[in-house]
Amino acid sequence: MNKSFQLVDGAAGGAFHFEEVYPTVDCGRFPVKRISSERVEVWADIYRDGGDVTRAHLVWRHDGERDWKSVSMTHHTDDRWVGTFVPDRPGRYVYAVEAWTDEFATWRDAFARKHQTGADATVDAIVGAGMLTKARAGGPDATAVILKQCEIFLQTGNVTALLTDELEHAMAESQFRPDLSRSQLFPLVVDRARAGVGAWYEMMPRSQAAAGNKAAAGNKAAADNYGAADNKDAMAGTHATFKDCTARLADIAAMNFDVICLPPIHPIGWTHRKGRDNTLPAMDGDPGSPYAIGAAAGGHDAVHPELGTLDDFRDFIAACTERNLEVALTLAAQCSPDHPWVTEHPQWFKRRPDGSLLQAENPSETCDDIVVFDFACEDSASLWNALRDVVLFWVEQGVKIFRADNPQAKPLPFWEWLIQEVQRRDPGVIFLAEAFTRSKIMKGLAKLGFSQSYTRFTSCTTKAELEHYLGELTCYPTRDYFRPNFFANTTDILPYHLQGGEVWMFKSRAALAAMLSASYGIYNGFELIEHDALPGSEEYRASDKFEIKPRDWDKAGHIKPYLGLINRIRRENPSLQQTANLRFIAVDDGNVIAFVKQSDDMTNAVAVVIALSRDIHDIWLPIGDTKLDIGGERRHVAAVENLVSGARTMLDWGGLSLRIEPDRDPALFLRCLA
Amino acid sequence: MNKSFQLVDGAAGGAFHFEEVYPTVDCGRFPVKRISSERVEVWADIYRDGGDVTRAHLVWRHDGERDWKSVSMTHHTDDRWVGTFVPDRPGRYVYAVEAWTDEFATWRDAFARKHQTGADATVDAIVGAGMLTKARAGGPDATAVILKQCEIFLQTGNVTALLTDELEHAMAESQFRPDLSRSQLFPLVVDRARAGVGAWYEMMPRSQAAAGNKAAAGNKAAADNYGAADNKDAMAGTHATFKDCTARLADIAAMNFDVICLPPIHPIGWTHRKGRDNTLPAMDGDPGSPYAIGAAAGGHDAVHPELGTLDDFRDFIAACTERNLEVALTLAAQCSPDHPWVTEHPQWFKRRPDGSLLQAENPSETCDDIVVFDFACEDSASLWNALRDVVLFWVEQGVKIFRADNPQAKPLPFWEWLIQEVQRRDPGVIFLAEAFTRSKIMKGLAKLGFSQSYTRFTSCTTKAELEHYLGELTCYPTRDYFRPNFFANTTDILPYHLQGGEVWMFKSRAALAAMLSASYGIYNGFELIEHDALPGSEEYRASDKFEIKPRDWDKAGHIKPYLGLINRIRRENPSLQQTANLRFIAVDDGNVIAFVKQSDDMTNAVAVVIALSRDIHDIWLPIGDTKLDIGGERRHVAAVENLVSGARTMLDWGGLSLRIEPDRDPALFLRCLA
Repeated sequence: MNKSFQLVDGAAGGAFHFEEVYPTVDCGRFPVKRISSERVEVWADIYRDGGDVTRAHLVWRHDGERDWKSVSMTHHTDDRWVGTFVPDRPGRYVYAVEAWTDEFATWRDAFARKHQTGADATVDAIVGAGMLTKARAGGPDATAVILKQCEIFLQTGNVTALLTDELEHAMAESQFRPDLSRSQLFPLVVDRARAGVGAWYEMMPRSQAAAGNKAAAGNKAAADNYGAADNKDAMAGTHATFKDCTARLADIAAMNFDVICLPPIHPIGWTHRKGRDNTLPAMDGDPGSPYAIGAAAGGHDAVHPELGTLDDFRDFIAACTERNLEVALTLAAQCSPDHPWVTEHPQWFKRRPDGSLLQAENPSETCDDIVVFDFACEDSASLWNALRDVVLFWVEQGVKIFRADNPQAKPLPFWEWLIQEVQRRDPGVIFLAEAFTRSKIMKGLAKLGFSQSYTRFTSCTTKAELEHYLGELTCYPTRDYFRPNFFANTTDILPYHLQGGEVWMFKSRAALAAMLSASYGIYNGFELIEHDALPGSEEYRASDKFEIKPRDWDKAGHIKPYLGLINRIRRENPSLQQTANLRFIAVDDGNVIAFVKQSDDMTNAVAVVIALSRDIHDIWLPIGDTKLDIGGERRHVAAVENLVSGARTMLDWGGLSLRIEPDRDPALFLRCLA
Repeated sequence: MNKSFQLVDGAAGGAFHFEEVYPTVDCGRFPVKRISSERVEVWADIYRDGGDVTRAHLVWRHDGERDWKSVSMTHHTDDRWVGTFVPDRPGRYVYAVEAWTDEFATWRDAFARKHQTGADATVDAIVGAGMLTKARAGGPDATAVILKQCEIFLQTGNVTALLTDELEHAMAESQFRPDLSRSQLFPLVVDRARAGVGAWYEMMPRSQAAAGNKAAAGNKAAADNYGAADNKDAMAGTHATFKDCTARLADIAAMNFDVICLPPIHPIGWTHRKGRDNTLPAMDGDPGSPYAIGAAAGGHDAVHPELGTLDDFRDFIAACTERNLEVALTLAAQCSPDHPWVTEHPQWFKRRPDGSLLQAENPSETCDDIVVFDFACEDSASLWNALRDVVLFWVEQGVKIFRADNPQAKPLPFWEWLIQEVQRRDPGVIFLAEAFTRSKIMKGLAKLGFSQSYTRFTSCTTKAELEHYLGELTCYPTRDYFRPNFFANTTDILPYHLQGGEVWMFKSRAALAAMLSASYGIYNGFELIEHDALPGSEEYRASDKFEIKPRDWDKAGHIKPYLGLINRIRRENPSLQQTANLRFIAVDDGNVIAFVKQSDDMTNAVAVVIALSRDIHDIWLPIGDTKLDIGGERRHVAAVENLVSGARTMLDWGGLSLRIEPDRDPALFLRCLA
């Protein structure tokens, strides 16, 4: 780079200005996110003074590689350029835009004009030939072309030797680039596919024994040692083990889920243990909240004895893997007062002047069973490292997905650091932010590194709300850093609209979650139409969080086949494995939502129509403008296949007349055919 | 700042995220612009984890000062904060946003809640009192309040002593701020008023002698020495001097102009001198283009001998200052082949292989009378310094405004460096970019430092074009770095719409330029309805650029009183001294444009209606929603005063029925009355 361009203090430097680079997140402060093998299409305004010929390149580099990769950018119009690259593996990348003046092409344009006028251009020809002699940056093919044309010109004096397109290309590759300029570097995080798509089934392990089952004998012994055996009979159900969980896998795999999400599986504290329905004090036999992590049996790197041993957990993971199910573990960065760290590292905890531990608080309740870290304590480095090592421990056991519990209540810089620390070692690790809070904090958590995020979907019900919210999520820049995971219900939320126990509504919500978002999930019990809430709240009555809740997993009225169906449809249609490819279709019914999703290669498109109210809906679905790629040719959609019934229907006048009877089925899934 | 927040490599650091800061230009790469004493209203999204009480400050600092100034920001809604400061003098500033957790206020909220429940809060009270003992950052008043309340609490044990608003304010000022975080620094350039507002009269000094006048004897001697005397008789007119220019000042001041803009006033080269109407070769007596700078008599820091001496120029400036006229000088960073630098610094110039100098080129013509600098030559530092010293030389002579000629043809980093170098020494110096080129380059020049810019206005004629273009200029972010200067004509452009010589059109264009943009200008001859173009082009026939063109400055049909009128109206109405305060009014006539401008304090508002075609227009002007501040009270506009006739008209049904007869007057200027 020419030294004269280095004179300005604080200027980015370089002959060129690079502006309005797309995609970027907060001016490059945070990374853009992509899935491995997904295209990164980069746009930028690029200009310098004057009218010389500009060349631009998009350059990028994986963190683990030394060399930059590079691809030519194309001038679109009005100084706007575009280029594309495809990152081929997970990890952190940087990309930038480079530009330089193609002096040879500039010379060639001016020379060709002058040559045509018949004016004496001898000296001008020498200028061009002189550039050939200085061009040494290219590969051997380009060098050969340059040498050959240079020789022809010198031997014949024929200037047309300097004007061939072949030579211009060779010179574009090879010439001296004194004013080469580079934009700032923009970060990019590339994740494996599961970060972008998956159907999640969250379950409470201790409740997985079927109603009436007894714990396995081996586990009973462990539980005895733990001191909980005396109270067994007082429990509503038997504490299930990882073996019971394994026994549930066939059922869950039959529903075609991809991820099994677990709450904390660690020893549960005794001090201020919470009783059923979040009442105090706990009664004999109450198992406590799994979020009160830590007891004599261990802390964040131990397994709750009543669930089994670490080996049992590893066996459970192996059994999941066999069925193509992946395990996600909840990471709750908090402790029960009985956690070993409380005595081993007293300095890690927030305390009051009398030395007592500070409990977790939120505006409506105090959680005396949970004490909180002082992330900014003097010894914070060892605390942060210990929490990182907890994650790395479970990574070693085979867990590659972590759901961070209430991440909005821990320092933002902690998460940014933690996620980078872990992904630097294993870029395949996925972090889900379980935050329900102010929109900007939720987005901020996604920006600083969370691979996926909980959303407002759970309580978003009207057509206007859904279309508005999905509009926000699927538009730039949100879509480039925030990957939604739509939960129809959660451990903590039985939304009001499900409390009536209407089956059509459960189906409608599952269909919305599964079809609108590439990642979605349910909490166990949803498939059984569980809908009993604490009065005036969205908390489950007799919640799994505070008691063992055995269930009849084949209870009459369950919708397991329906969930299996929508998950199968998701698996079979690539267009449903993305989120930002959503296009809403205007239908003339305020309680029917309709959209089309189409795969990037345009070979797969599915139209989805979902009822938001229980009455019968007759609608007109205008999807005739959807085009499909059939063997490289683009054709308008001509018919659709109902992915449930298999029935095919021709489009008429560019659309379809459809009837939805929610009580039969609140949603239609129609694959487009050309 | 707590060290635990320093762990993340490359992160901006700090407990808080600062996002969507407004105003900024290209993420803070370039400065926002303001006029001295103009408000800078800063908005930002600010958040951290959790729900603790956040405080935010806007901080700023003038380049020449060591200490930061600071003002509290207010929480608007949804984590968005706002604060305002007023820079009180020209110069470069930086500003930033700071945030910290008000632990005392957070404690107070929680404590007050607990206190109300009647629960034992003794230990909690001690936590709060403990904060008092650590609060040492505030002023003496705050410290006194804290000591007093602390003492009351210790003596009486009465916790209400810890809950007073006075104490909360004192603690907000004084407490320990361990998590104080700061955003990046954003640059700001503050200019003196003339950078934002002014009526410009550009004149060619050598043509300022009235037709038939003779050069003063003293100057004739100088011209004789220069060797041009022999050809005097062949000239169409007599070469005017700065003394002749001074004689014109009364006329120009009577038109109420603010700035007199001059082309280069330096010795003109002889080699390849251009003849009349840009023909080659020059004939005996042709004075050459003033843009071919440099001859035996000197270069960029010399005065063309036929115009007079440097002392004469200083006298001219003094005469301008007396009449409240300011001089703007053109800075053309190029040379004639006869410039002393060509022999003194041969390395500064672009050359061809045979050693010959490279001429200035543009796609349509070669300018053999001008050779170009090699801004990236080995010796570029001395070239850049020499050009800076040229500017500083003229600053010393009293010139504080420079119009850069074709800045888009010189390196962007050169301008950024030059403007900073000059303004660091004298922040009152104003630079105008005379660029007519691609939109992004024009904006880029404004971003990198030009105080004002030429615009597309000169060729922008239809209502839709004008409204669209002004919309772009008056919206964020353009309005925050690009200050337009609307020229109705220029040395180089006699726009097609003026070539018919229709007086109403000249008036309409002057009114548009003067009323739409706070800075506007004309090139001499406009006031005389000069409209003779070279066929098929927008170049003046017999242009001043290539010959001496004496004029009868009182030629029949001139519109000097009209220009004097609109400039007086501009001076008397503060609302017309801004650009971004523009609001178009919808009128039902495609050839009438209407708008209201209102001063920031709402005391002055002017409605302007201008005809874009010659036919008579009857329109309805709905301006009833305009509000005025009358002694602190906001009132709707009730009447208007015609600023030309003085006639007052009451509004009826929220508007006015108006007739425009362009041949009488194409524009109406109506001051709003309440």
